[in-house]
Amino acid sequence: MPTYKAPLRDTRFLMNEVFDFPAHYAGLSNGGDATPDMVDAILGECGRFCEEVLAPINLSGDLEGCTFENGEVTTPKGFKEAYEQFVAGGWQGLSHPAEYGGQGMPMSLGLIKSEMMGTANWSFTMYPGLSLGCMNTIMQHGDDTQKNLYMPPLVEGRWTGTMCLTEPQCGTDLGQVKTKAEPQSDGSFKLTGTKIFISAGEHDLAENIIHIVLARLPDAPAGTRGISLFIVPKFLVNADGSMGERNPVTCGSIEHKMGIRASATAVLNFDGAVGYMIAKPNKGLEAMFTFMNTARIGTAVQGVAHAELSYQGSLPYALERRSMRSLSGKKEPDKVADALIWHPDVRRMLLTQKAFAEGGRAMIYFAAQYADHMTNGIIENDQKKYEYWDDKLGFFTPILKGFLTEMGLEAANIGMQVFGGHGYIKEHGMEQIARDARIATLYEGTTGIQALDLLGRKVLLTTRGKCVRDFTGDVLKFCGRHARNKKMRRYVWDLTKLCAQWNYLTTRIMLAARKERDMVGAASADFLMYSGYVTMAYFWALQAAVAQEKLENGGAEQPEFYQAKLQTAEFYFERLLPRAQAHATSMLAPVKSLMQMDKDHFAFF
Amino acid sequence: MPTYKAPLRDTRFLMNEVFDFPAHYAGLSNGGDATPDMVDAILGECGRFCEEVLAPINLSGDLEGCTFENGEVTTPKGFKEAYEQFVAGGWQGLSHPAEYGGQGMPMSLGLIKSEMMGTANWSFTMYPGLSLGCMNTIMQHGDDTQKNLYMPPLVEGRWTGTMCLTEPQCGTDLGQVKTKAEPQSDGSFKLTGTKIFISAGEHDLAENIIHIVLARLPDAPAGTRGISLFIVPKFLVNADGSMGERNPVTCGSIEHKMGIRASATAVLNFDGAVGYMIAKPNKGLEAMFTFMNTARIGTAVQGVAHAELSYQGSLPYALERRSMRSLSGKKEPDKVADALIWHPDVRRMLLTQKAFAEGGRAMIYFAAQYADHMTNGIIENDQKKYEYWDDKLGFFTPILKGFLTEMGLEAANIGMQVFGGHGYIKEHGMEQIARDARIATLYEGTTGIQALDLLGRKVLLTTRGKCVRDFTGDVLKFCGRHARNKKMRRYVWDLTKLCAQWNYLTTRIMLAARKERDMVGAASADFLMYSGYVTMAYFWALQAAVAQEKLENGGAEQPEFYQAKLQTAEFYFERLLPRAQAHATSMLAPVKSLMQMDKDHFAFF
Repeated sequence: MPTYKAPLRDTRFLMNEVFDFPAHYAGLSNGGDATPDMVDAILGECGRFCEEVLAPINLSGDLEGCTFENGEVTTPKGFKEAYEQFVAGGWQGLSHPAEYGGQGMPMSLGLIKSEMMGTANWSFTMYPGLSLGCMNTIMQHGDDTQKNLYMPPLVEGRWTGTMCLTEPQCGTDLGQVKTKAEPQSDGSFKLTGTKIFISAGEHDLAENIIHIVLARLPDAPAGTRGISLFIVPKFLVNADGSMGERNPVTCGSIEHKMGIRASATAVLNFDGAVGYMIAKPNKGLEAMFTFMNTARIGTAVQGVAHAELSYQGSLPYALERRSMRSLSGKKEPDKVADALIWHPDVRRMLLTQKAFAEGGRAMIYFAAQYADHMTNGIIENDQKKYEYWDDKLGFFTPILKGFLTEMGLEAANIGMQVFGGHGYIKEHGMEQIARDARIATLYEGTTGIQALDLLGRKVLLTTRGKCVRDFTGDVLKFCGRHARNKKMRRYVWDLTKLCAQWNYLTTRIMLAARKERDMVGAASADFLMYSGYVTMAYFWALQAAVAQEKLENGGAEQPEFYQAKLQTAEFYFERLLPRAQAHATSMLAPVKSLMQMDKDHFAFF
Repeated sequence: MPTYKAPLRDTRFLMNEVFDFPAHYAGLSNGGDATPDMVDAILGECGRFCEEVLAPINLSGDLEGCTFENGEVTTPKGFKEAYEQFVAGGWQGLSHPAEYGGQGMPMSLGLIKSEMMGTANWSFTMYPGLSLGCMNTIMQHGDDTQKNLYMPPLVEGRWTGTMCLTEPQCGTDLGQVKTKAEPQSDGSFKLTGTKIFISAGEHDLAENIIHIVLARLPDAPAGTRGISLFIVPKFLVNADGSMGERNPVTCGSIEHKMGIRASATAVLNFDGAVGYMIAKPNKGLEAMFTFMNTARIGTAVQGVAHAELSYQGSLPYALERRSMRSLSGKKEPDKVADALIWHPDVRRMLLTQKAFAEGGRAMIYFAAQYADHMTNGIIENDQKKYEYWDDKLGFFTPILKGFLTEMGLEAANIGMQVFGGHGYIKEHGMEQIARDARIATLYEGTTGIQALDLLGRKVLLTTRGKCVRDFTGDVLKFCGRHARNKKMRRYVWDLTKLCAQWNYLTTRIMLAARKERDMVGAASADFLMYSGYVTMAYFWALQAAVAQEKLENGGAEQPEFYQAKLQTAEFYFERLLPRAQAHATSMLAPVKSLMQMDKDHFAFF
């Protein structure tokens, strides 16, 4: 079972040396309190909480799972106590406004916190994680009464929240939502319908659960333009904030899932449950998706989390377990055999995990700064600023969510592979990581949906390729700055070629799609993965440049840390980045290679 | 939950139209009874048994799992009855000699049987599957007394067998085996030690279990040269074949595994258990590995099985579930949304599963003919013949086992992906396939071990590249035969280039490995995957050639079947084969990109 340790050395490297978070925070309207000392203290405290409280109940939580009886859900042993500590530590409100009891820190710090907590125990982190979506929706679209009533206990963590979108007949295609909302004479609504896959939809951690629910008014137009958004509390809330009667929204069952078994996934039945409209009638989907970019980056974090945790499990095993002799001569002649880590293919596996974990972390932290600016736009009531940064973030969101969760799954499976047959056994905890990681490419929009969002919406429809040109422009500027550095030459050269290729591929697809609309869907998955590999290449080059500089200027504390960064970057460019070329070839394949088969000819028996 | 249907149409296509099994069987010394009619009857009966008996207890077997109490293992509900039917049907002895009660059919038919049964219920198939290893070892290395005593009930299926290799401290590195065998005055031995991961090591399906055990004699040299092989029955067997007393080999526990949960994986404690030596002292490993190639192909089958089963689950879902509208216009305007199968990316997923399942099946059937010849060498007591075919098979074994199990895992995960969030829920059965498939890249030698076996042993050490030259020679002959067929041109051209590249890569690695021994391990995984993609490309081209001919000559029954073959081949070449190029690039990367990192610099906290 992996013993989680917070990767603070890497976090500090990224925050202080690669992305200059101190300067970034100093420039934010809500960054004043995020001084380097304060940030460091928060990270240290968060790391301790993760290592001592959350990690120890990760494997046991999986083995026990949640139980459902008489409409009530019991979380596994230790979850309630851990959640109490989470609330007592003020962790829920870290990045929420002080006026509602939060600590008012920038959103990025909340993301970094959730990365650590999620790595230690993803199932646990789902409970407060869902509250974020609920709080963000109320903050952005609720009226003052709603904010004052619901935000303080949510920010405190005394209550949690959910997002109720999916129904049995539809997940991605929310235009098919059927849940009904009947207006009442007092301005409230009565909701009737069934929602499924509701994470944290029912549990024993909090006094109340505030559901944010998509439903249709009686006169609503069909499809996505007829969906409204409602607040439906588990217990109604009196005007003074005290708890009222139980609302008829009940948990019908919880799902038996492959993984994240300590996270309760509820079927919720709304039987005339009282709801309060939030945002405008029939504008529910837009409101719900306001924070989609940050929610999806919150899921992208899972890719990094599971790559990291699996790596933390497989590395010590590779250092301790002895098998066979190195082909290049005995490495530990006094031992019965050489440790796994001497075998090149085991190193390939470990370095793949490391490259994905640390490369993905860099991508998340970079995007987190955009999210900070976007949130500042909201805080400052500056719609233009908000939209500018939300758009910039919007390009990276599907790349991060789509690519990093796939890589997290690969890394988690590699972790099992390093363990050999032992990886398949529950007690070692490695297979749990692979099962937990498996959900990440499915929820918050499958990889296929991310791919369509990236290529269809962000690249082609909204910007006609400009977002690719903009980002590659930034990458080329980086290349220009390092072109004369001998040790950076191979990165600069590869990235320069890739930037040209990325734009070329975009143009080719754009032209092809004019003739054949299905070209977009046909190319999308390969385009997403290609974009992911290239983006991660840039962030590895960025880390290499900083490491190179540190080592050249001498006096770097712990030079081996920077050396390892350079070596991992080299590994990434030599052995993972070539995959991008396979995707480049496939994405330009003729549409007919997918579409020509008659749907009734896929199988014959 | 996928409803398994035996893919008899494809099996017949491969057996009768692609590989000409009737002629192949006619040329075997044990193929006389395998007339087309008889084969067809067996396949049909086997399919029915799989569909009606094995498939219905696949999901329930996973949910219930095996239970362990007081040293006894209980298989899930229905397994005992299914196993009784398996025995009654004479399925165990299908490919075993008539003199021991078998049906004497060629080995290939046994492999095809195990593909169908394994697809319907892999966990179930593990029980009789392990018996095969045991029977093969006794047949090849046992003396007549041992054969007469143990073979009949094993062939009947009344008893089952195991292979006891792994110990807590070693799996791959069997030189570390510690189990002791003390010679007794009566010529028997007493074995003491612990074996783990023993599939079918204890269960309630059979009267007796015959363990084949690796252990060391007291005076044995260290390492792999000091290992002997023993028969250790659970119940001792009297000279007349009747059951004697219980041997002190006991089940200490069974593993809690990620998947194949209905297959019992036992920890076996040998406390002075009576054993009988088989083969020569200290030659146990060689004897154990006699049938390694066929055993590993038996595991390669799992890749095909899980690709097929997952495809059989995801295809109907893609045809029935409706979500969004096709980007190229509404396809089912009278429905609330278009079926998933209209979306190009869903087709990409389905066709990937189909290409792996059918391409992998072709690879297995091809290798199965080699296995038939090899077995004929044994039957005819023709050591040279045996070795010739075993060597030929030996080149394909790691490709099939390594590549197909990885592809099976990918296909199983794709099956979940087609289901979206529903893929993560146990009741649909799709996540079980992914969990069951996950073991295949770990047991019978991990993918990394297959890669070393292929590149290090088969390609470089034993044949200095000749096995690649031989196989690509066959492929080029195929290309020559079809070079003038316009519709085959793209396959011929791609394969011709790939054959040249495969030999080039082999030579490059061979030269590099002379200077740096670690080049072999560094390149091995990419070399394996490259070899897999190219080999599968050949088998898709082969199928395409047959389909093309059928369609051209007109009069093909069910022309859409052949059309679909051509379309799948095209998909494979356009959208999967490009991955080979990524592996070609990575495998030539400098060794230092893997080896330069100090083992203590992989992580910093």
